[in-house]
Amino acid sequence: MEKERLEEVSSFPKDRSLENMKKKFKISKPKGKLGVLIPGIGGAVSTTFIAGIEAYKKKSGKLFGSLSQMGTIRIGKRTEKKTPLIKDLIDLAKVEDLEFYGWDVYPEDCYNATIKAGVLDKNLVDSLKDELEQIKPNKAVFNKKFADNLNGKNIKKEKNYYKLAQDLIKEIKAFKKNKNIDRLVMIWCGSTEIFFKKSKIHDTVTSFENAMKKNHKDISPSMIYAYAAIKCGAAYANGAPNLSVDIPALTTLSKKYKVPIAGKDFKTGQTLMKTILAPGIKSRLLGLRGWFSTNILGNRDGEVLDNPKNFKTKEESKLSVLEHIFQPEINKELYGDFYHKVRINYYPPRGDQKEAWDNIDIFGWLGYEMQIKVNFLCRDSILAAPIVLDLIIFMDLAQRAGMLGIQEWMSFYFKSPMVGENLYPEHDLFIQSMKLKNTLRYLAGEKNIDHLGLDYYYE
Amino acid sequence: MEKERLEEVSSFPKDRSLENMKKKFKISKPKGKLGVLIPGIGGAVSTTFIAGIEAYKKKSGKLFGSLSQMGTIRIGKRTEKKTPLIKDLIDLAKVEDLEFYGWDVYPEDCYNATIKAGVLDKNLVDSLKDELEQIKPNKAVFNKKFADNLNGKNIKKEKNYYKLAQDLIKEIKAFKKNKNIDRLVMIWCGSTEIFFKKSKIHDTVTSFENAMKKNHKDISPSMIYAYAAIKCGAAYANGAPNLSVDIPALTTLSKKYKVPIAGKDFKTGQTLMKTILAPGIKSRLLGLRGWFSTNILGNRDGEVLDNPKNFKTKEESKLSVLEHIFQPEINKELYGDFYHKVRINYYPPRGDQKEAWDNIDIFGWLGYEMQIKVNFLCRDSILAAPIVLDLIIFMDLAQRAGMLGIQEWMSFYFKSPMVGENLYPEHDLFIQSMKLKNTLRYLAGEKNIDHLGLDYYYE
Amino acid sequence: MEKERLEEVSSFPKDRSLENMKKKFKISKPKGKLGVLIPGIGGAVSTTFIAGIEAYKKKSGKLFGSLSQMGTIRIGKRTEKKTPLIKDLIDLAKVEDLEFYGWDVYPEDCYNATIKAGVLDKNLVDSLKDELEQIKPNKAVFNKKFADNLNGKNIKKEKNYYKLAQDLIKEIKAFKKNKNIDRLVMIWCGSTEIFFKKSKIHDTVTSFENAMKKNHKDISPSMIYAYAAIKCGAAYANGAPNLSVDIPALTTLSKKYKVPIAGKDFKTGQTLMKTILAPGIKSRLLGLRGWFSTNILGNRDGEVLDNPKNFKTKEESKLSVLEHIFQPEINKELYGDFYHKVRINYYPPRGDQKEAWDNIDIFGWLGYEMQIKVNFLCRDSILAAPIVLDLIIFMDLAQRAGMLGIQEWMSFYFKSPMVGENLYPEHDLFIQSMKLKNTLRYLAGEKNIDHLGLDYYYE
Amino acid sequence: MEKERLEEVSSFPKDRSLENMKKKFKISKPKGKLGVLIPGIGGAVSTTFIAGIEAYKKKSGKLFGSLSQMGTIRIGKRTEKKTPLIKDLIDLAKVEDLEFYGWDVYPEDCYNATIKAGVLDKNLVDSLKDELEQIKPNKAVFNKKFADNLNGKNIKKEKNYYKLAQDLIKEIKAFKKNKNIDRLVMIWCGSTEIFFKKSKIHDTVTSFENAMKKNHKDISPSMIYAYAAIKCGAAYANGAPNLSVDIPALTTLSKKYKVPIAGKDFKTGQTLMKTILAPGIKSRLLGLRGWFSTNILGNRDGEVLDNPKNFKTKEESKLSVLEHIFQPEINKELYGDFYHKVRINYYPPRGDQKEAWDNIDIFGWLGYEMQIKVNFLCRDSILAAPIVLDLIIFMDLAQRAGMLGIQEWMSFYFKSPMVGENLYPEHDLFIQSMKLKNTLRYLAGEKNIDHLGLDYYYE
Repeated sequence: MEKERLEEVSSFPKDRSLENMKKKFKISKPKGKLGVLIPGIGGAVSTTFIAGIEAYKKKSGKLFGSLSQMGTIRIGKRTEKKTPLIKDLIDLAKVEDLEFYGWDVYPEDCYNATIKAGVLDKNLVDSLKDELEQIKPNKAVFNKKFADNLNGKNIKKEKNYYKLAQDLIKEIKAFKKNKNIDRLVMIWCGSTEIFFKKSKIHDTVTSFENAMKKNHKDISPSMIYAYAAIKCGAAYANGAPNLSVDIPALTTLSKKYKVPIAGKDFKTGQTLMKTILAPGIKSRLLGLRGWFSTNILGNRDGEVLDNPKNFKTKEESKLSVLEHIFQPEINKELYGDFYHKVRINYYPPRGDQKEAWDNIDIFGWLGYEMQIKVNFLCRDSILAAPIVLDLIIFMDLAQRAGMLGIQEWMSFYFKSPMVGENLYPEHDLFIQSMKLKNTLRYLAGEKNIDHLGLDYYYE
Repeated sequence: MEKERLEEVSSFPKDRSLENMKKKFKISKPKGKLGVLIPGIGGAVSTTFIAGIEAYKKKSGKLFGSLSQMGTIRIGKRTEKKTPLIKDLIDLAKVEDLEFYGWDVYPEDCYNATIKAGVLDKNLVDSLKDELEQIKPNKAVFNKKFADNLNGKNIKKEKNYYKLAQDLIKEIKAFKKNKNIDRLVMIWCGSTEIFFKKSKIHDTVTSFENAMKKNHKDISPSMIYAYAAIKCGAAYANGAPNLSVDIPALTTLSKKYKVPIAGKDFKTGQTLMKTILAPGIKSRLLGLRGWFSTNILGNRDGEVLDNPKNFKTKEESKLSVLEHIFQPEINKELYGDFYHKVRINYYPPRGDQKEAWDNIDIFGWLGYEMQIKVNFLCRDSILAAPIVLDLIIFMDLAQRAGMLGIQEWMSFYFKSPMVGENLYPEHDLFIQSMKLKNTLRYLAGEKNIDHLGLDYYYE
Repeated sequence: MEKERLEEVSSFPKDRSLENMKKKFKISKPKGKLGVLIPGIGGAVSTTFIAGIEAYKKKSGKLFGSLSQMGTIRIGKRTEKKTPLIKDLIDLAKVEDLEFYGWDVYPEDCYNATIKAGVLDKNLVDSLKDELEQIKPNKAVFNKKFADNLNGKNIKKEKNYYKLAQDLIKEIKAFKKNKNIDRLVMIWCGSTEIFFKKSKIHDTVTSFENAMKKNHKDISPSMIYAYAAIKCGAAYANGAPNLSVDIPALTTLSKKYKVPIAGKDFKTGQTLMKTILAPGIKSRLLGLRGWFSTNILGNRDGEVLDNPKNFKTKEESKLSVLEHIFQPEINKELYGDFYHKVRINYYPPRGDQKEAWDNIDIFGWLGYEMQIKVNFLCRDSILAAPIVLDLIIFMDLAQRAGMLGIQEWMSFYFKSPMVGENLYPEHDLFIQSMKLKNTLRYLAGEKNIDHLGLDYYYE
Repeated sequence: MEKERLEEVSSFPKDRSLENMKKKFKISKPKGKLGVLIPGIGGAVSTTFIAGIEAYKKKSGKLFGSLSQMGTIRIGKRTEKKTPLIKDLIDLAKVEDLEFYGWDVYPEDCYNATIKAGVLDKNLVDSLKDELEQIKPNKAVFNKKFADNLNGKNIKKEKNYYKLAQDLIKEIKAFKKNKNIDRLVMIWCGSTEIFFKKSKIHDTVTSFENAMKKNHKDISPSMIYAYAAIKCGAAYANGAPNLSVDIPALTTLSKKYKVPIAGKDFKTGQTLMKTILAPGIKSRLLGLRGWFSTNILGNRDGEVLDNPKNFKTKEESKLSVLEHIFQPEINKELYGDFYHKVRINYYPPRGDQKEAWDNIDIFGWLGYEMQIKVNFLCRDSILAAPIVLDLIIFMDLAQRAGMLGIQEWMSFYFKSPMVGENLYPEHDLFIQSMKLKNTLRYLAGEKNIDHLGLDYYYE
């Protein structure tokens, strides 16, 4: 028994055997179709995602960047050399079984929207024209107050929020029935809504429903979508930084309806880089004087964020990252006084090819200063598309396993991870990755890995 | 019991209690002085380290960058909010108890060597003049064949390698006795020796000693130092990429003499950054086409590495990093064919202020390409000095705990971590950090952390 | 005669001989002291300039960056190999003859202000303490409306603008008399004032004086200083982007009082770089899609420019540069539609060490795109100080030569060069440099250089 | 007359009127076809150039980057606002009249070679297939000793150098006759040959011809081509850094045969940038401590330069640039001791998309240090193609104007400009540009511009 304690894999005692665990989280098989509901289906992220899926089905594209499709996972000790694909370890929904349904304020079908987004090569998109043309956005629930820079006209006429929710529910149920869908996931790919804080009306399901009925000013479209999703038993993931499902009323509702929820804000370019670098800097106890981040991008996202009210929502999401990783309250001398500034600049020459430039002022031994500069020539939608896929696949897994409410193990994918009450979010990408992988190991009945590994040396 | 399995801390079962564990690794108290033996004591790293310690003792400098001095460690669940300093969790040798002894091919005392290195402000160094002047390098074991660009004359006259080792042992023992030293650690801070491979003479203690007696060409000075250290019961850590203690003869000897050993090559600027970024890229399943790394530096290290034979040793050390992190054999489509090139350029205008520029060519969803460029304006010795301190402190801990032979948990500090036979090294900084911290938790009788954390949601 | 036409030096016909030219611009000898009047004498630029002059006088510092002190000038044909120092070609005021007088809203003497600015090493500043302490700022003409982020209290009590001007005139005359000054130059080193446009009251001397008497809202402090300078016969150069002397009333007045004037806005870091790169790009007919410029800086200048109203003045100054160099109206296909954005970010960790990052999107043959990224780790005041010196020296030369009104040949030093009516400004640094040097050649009675040089091949 | 001296345009005296000048340089009309002879016609530069010309003829591509096609030139005073296109000012050969003929060691026709080069979009190249397929490389004069990394087999069998030259002459004459060509220009677009220095055999035409007859080791293929070109009356421009025409024997021959010659080494990415930045730094008297330049590229050029012997030729060409611009002998304190290092790294992931990274260590006022870092994501062939075109057009102009021997005014296009004996080369891009433009003005009978411009202020 002593030996076990030395191992770099944690024990999996008998009474927590695979059989036993399965009583807790019974994972049903992913049979039939998985319906994917997408508000903002005409945007760059959605269309890049959908076109990628279609290309994959035609064997003209590979789903690089997707953990659920290409990721491996180490099982057992290093010397066992077992690193299966995740999808070979645990039953996941198949890409071929996804069926799309969505809404957008712009009326273009998915082919035209993909062309307009300008992310993918025209040759590729043209080769998928038949498939993409069939995906057409339904009229959106929209409120210009929350995204003033959008001018689409493909909008539902109904004005009452509660009735709009009922309309969405009806639509979703019809889709499920017509297309013979087995399970549902909704993923918010719409634009960032303007910044506002939780208020009392977000406290309970009742107060929230009453506020919807009265068209209260603190009900945003993304909340109406989230409400409808949960009521239909659809898992819900939020790719933007606005509140949406992150209010007590809806987290409560999600437990009641036994659906998993997750958010907020896909972690793509600069913040992804930040949550890679910051844990590294901190692990070495290098101090931080300042971190200046600027972005240039020219897509629809850039246009929306050129509005200071919408940028405020994004800024809050982006700023919190460093505070949580560096824990200034614990490491005062190192992190008690750093200056963090984030800028996003609309710069049309770049289109979707976002570019980030970071300047990081650190200090080490005796206070001597050093600088790290990172220039990331990234592609926003290319980084976001595999996140969309993984979230769909893993949220479905969660639902099949009976995991309800907030899915903290999805933190890996978000700039502002939703966590349970009284918990602080983990922003460190490597903690997030370990959380995700150990959860998968757990669900598969495999031992956790904690990298202790003294056993190799004291046998 | 089920609940325990959901926790983000691993269980610490009763029969592996603190008492029980202590039978395995009995940690003796760090009483008395800790002797620090430094080959290459006059170099930039050594002098920056020693001057820092002296500044700290006079309260004119802080030991930023040192995990052993400033690092905290989370204990228990997130909700417990316990994050003590590591040195409050576990007994470590005190900085005030370090006593230095060293060798160098250049005869300058530590004050003059620190000035020559040009790393620290003259004002600061002058304020430490009295202390630093007292530290004088002893004549070095040196062989120009292994470091042709060095021209120092402060060299032992004895020519026979075995007798040189005996001389070192005599010196060390005299130092221990004269200064009333309790325990010893040797840390190689000398220059990088030229590249050569293990041969038969390195296989056993006997073959090694015979080879020393015959001045065999495959015995380098750093091996002679390592041999002497082990024979004196001193822990040995190797800060350069040359073989030194990383040969079967000496790892065997280390177990026999019950001393911990570790290496190779302090992980400072560019490689540190690489082992931060590469795991991040890999965690997201972003593919890699190429990684080009170039460095400019103008210190003694740069001068030595301007010799292709010495650079070869460094290059091997630097190149292996990516191979191990990306595991091309497991992820062929993503990492099966990347191009990795490392260049070091001697560029005098910069002195010790090494600058690294990396260009990383990655690809994501459907193969679309992106670029990450990192420009690190670092300071080589400022990054290395706290590593020297941590290694001294933790190697001493290991020795007091009875941990002998290769200390894999020190991988965190090395470009080419030494590991046990049949094991691959872990290069991922975050795995290394977790390994280090879970080892400390283990030694302190605390539960390991594996970040599962489902318990917060299913109570 | 044909030969002459082929030469790379332009002819200097007999009737435009040195004698003849001197009738036009009689250059009097620079005898006696040159009084230097500096509004904003306590800022980073002023103190760096003054401390540098004092260091130079004590032989502890060199005036790198100054064309008047270190610049050479080619005379005649390449084969003649004549490149004297400019100051050996033409009589210039000596650095030793400068006598400083200034105003500032902060009361610190020049020693304390230099320390506060944090630009220069404390050791150096301390060695100049005696000299610097003697330079104390007089109470400033100040109006918070024009620089809201400044909170100094060292302000003149008089409220009427016209009377304030008279007070300044009195002060200046007293200074001239008391210190036995021969000639005067005023150089505006104060902060950037908020943006506003010329109005009718700036049209004539009379309307301007009337407006001063009535405390008109469009009279800013820098205009009052400029007015006082001209009335005292002091040359006036404007180092900030605000209008100041750049209004018809004052250019008219400058001609009447026979004083040279110049402006606006010292061309230091990013804009300097822009006027180097843009002409290069244009010379090769490479097209421009966009130019994104961002800055981080943490000095007083950064603080003032954090106010959008003040930034607006700076932005206008910075933006016009590219328009003028690329001439979109002439080169529509190449430059008809580029996107230019300039950002300045207050970022305290950097202090005076401004950093600029530029991204330039260009295109070439068949429209293929390329990118240039420039990262300039500059020091604002270090770049500005030699400009201050050169302007003092050359404006004095202009005055001694009888050159009155706008000095376009000083364009080399300014972000927004003042030029005569109906002329467009030249922003290309190389045209500016040639203009400056050919003017010096002209004043010295030497032939101009136009780099034709066919003569070497057809003799 | 005095007024004229103040102008920013130089006088054009009556006896050097357009009529008079034309006696000196009689410019014949560009009638008929211009034959373009290209050694290395299958390389990336040549194919990008030719495909561009074909695209232009079909109106599917624009010749951005070409001064002869898109450049304007200011004529007269600023107030005259005359800036015609260069080709409207002076008669130039028309792009439509170019007729290509070339040699290459690889046998692919121009369509396949263009595809292989991978510079241009396949869609575009396919649209030009018919035209490009017709251009087939003739067998090359090749000597593996001078370019060891090339492995083509499309090589002439004849071994004797002199006879090879005669073969080339025969080919060229046949081409001229068969295609009814009016005038000829040869432009070397082959690879860089290995480094070697001029020797005695290069001194006179006779010694050179004798050496050819004896297959002397110092006769490289590019010399044989140059010799053949001159003998056929073809202007010759050398796009690579090897000696080629830059030997006394051939410059003498060029005068005898009345052909213009120019070289060496197309100035494209990093060196272009260097000759833009260095003059800017120097104009401001900023000192230089070091300039580190590194390149990554993955095309055939990169492969050839991976051979140290070939890189040596390139390095010499690249290094001399800074020496000449900064004139360390004149500005010792500023430029007497800078460290210049240039690296080229073969890095396949990039193909033709060369990337340069420069670090420039400068200092200013009192010696304070600053850094400029430039990252140029360029495309080698895209930058070189318009140079090829301009050289063809302007070398033809020179020939029609009777300008023979070295054309220094072409310096603008070269890394190592050829100049007359006893002259130093001008590397400053802005001096080169002014030389080029004033030569054009001169040939067109227009006044030169020297940017004096005092006239605007003293009328």
